[in-house]
Amino acid sequence: MAKHETSLNLLFSALGDPTRRAILSALAGGPRSVTQLAAPHDMALPTFMGHLKKLEEAGLVQTEKLGRTRTCSLCPDALQPVRSWLEEQRDLWEGRLDRFDDYVTKLAEERNDA
Amino acid sequence: MAKHETSLNLLFSALGDPTRRAILSALAGGPRSVTQLAAPHDMALPTFMGHLKKLEEAGLVQTEKLGRTRTCSLCPDALQPVRSWLEEQRDLWEGRLDRFDDYVTKLAEERNDA
Repeated sequence: MAKHETSLNLLFSALGDPTRRAILSALAGGPRSVTQLAAPHDMALPTFMGHLKKLEEAGLVQTEKLGRTRTCSLCPDALQPVRSWLEEQRDLWEGRLDRFDDYVTKLAEERNDA
Repeated sequence: MAKHETSLNLLFSALGDPTRRAILSALAGGPRSVTQLAAPHDMALPTFMGHLKKLEEAGLVQTEKLGRTRTCSLCPDALQPVRSWLEEQRDLWEGRLDRFDDYVTKLAEERNDA
């Protein structure tokens, strides 16, 4: 599978979970320690770490260990393939609507010519 | 969980698979029968139908049975929650950068005043 497709699979799958989306929203405010990030979520730490790992694998989050604290930060450009895919879909759809417009115009012209 | 969150979960999870994204791109060109849609994909029909079902559950695709043919079409507005979520993330991130700008400006002013 193309690298681009694999990366879209990881990105979309990572975004398909409310805890992981909440982590991204929290990190949009700046880097946070794992403890700070986990605090609002009512789940066992290993489960929470599993969510962080998915975000890291998708390239959405990076973590760094400074002394005894693991700090997480956002990789904001990582969402770009998702934005590009959505734009492609819109272009495909609008291309179709344009072609439909052309077809209707052509039909109308043919009717006027008849 | 809020309805909006559930809908984002279903949408992002549905998009996290290359076969399902290819189905959406194909349907952007107009409605297709299941047979037409399945043709380029090297998989058993039940597996392919499973992918279609995920897209239907997320509200991205609707299917209609006309005689013996099941026809699928795109629900293009269904991607709107995904677009809105991405815009929210960008706003959060840019809000943070603006605050950082303000902070740097304030520091510079304080240094000039000193």
